[in-house]
Amino acid sequence: MAKISSPTETEWCIESLIAVFQKYAGKDGYNCSLSKTEFLSFMNTELAAFTKNHKDPSVLDRMKKLDVNSDGQLDVPEFLNLIGGIAVACHDSFLKAVPSQKWT
Amino acid sequence: MAKISSPTETEWCIESLIAVFQKYAGKDGYNCSLSKTEFLSFMNTELAAFTKNHKDPSVLDRMKKLDVNSDGQLDVPEFLNLIGGIAVACHDSFLKAVPSQKWT
Repeated sequence: MAKISSPTETEWCIESLIAVFQKYAGKDGYNCSLSKTEFLSFMNTELAAFTKNHKDPSVLDRMKKLDVNSDGQLDVPEFLNLIGGIAVACHDSFLKAVPSQKWT
Repeated sequence: MAKISSPTETEWCIESLIAVFQKYAGKDGYNCSLSKTEFLSFMNTELAAFTKNHKDPSVLDRMKKLDVNSDGQLDVPEFLNLIGGIAVACHDSFLKAVPSQKWT
């Protein structure tokens, strides 16, 4: 049998993000996209700290901006744009908070 | 003291992806972007299974495509485009492998 090694941290993150998407996307039976209700459920459960602490547009306004093809649903690439946007914002905050190491 | 709750799975993934980026980006002392050497180290360590199992262009060709601003480095948004692209491909493969649930 082929040896299966345990996933790396990056692989684990990719798997987990897909699993989280499918968990919420599957609530109404169609597991390829997040409906408005599913997106609200995801945001209020998985990113509650983020939605509470930021002076952001409302959660559904945010969904409208992410919904590039305007079908009223978020597919995987649209969902990952949200995750990527949050990660970039977190990284920027981190760099502002911690003295930057530049070409030491 | 304010109560700090443990991170959700999504928050944990976001934190981990930033930590992985910074781990590899910090190898040459400048922790805001991945140089070619750092990107190769990241790909060969964190995504070795992916680079070995796919008939992809070489790792550095892949970096060139991700490097939108052509500065020879990958910043956080460019890095996250790679992660997002892999996650979308994984999700698509999963949907092909598992019978789709449609409006059950």
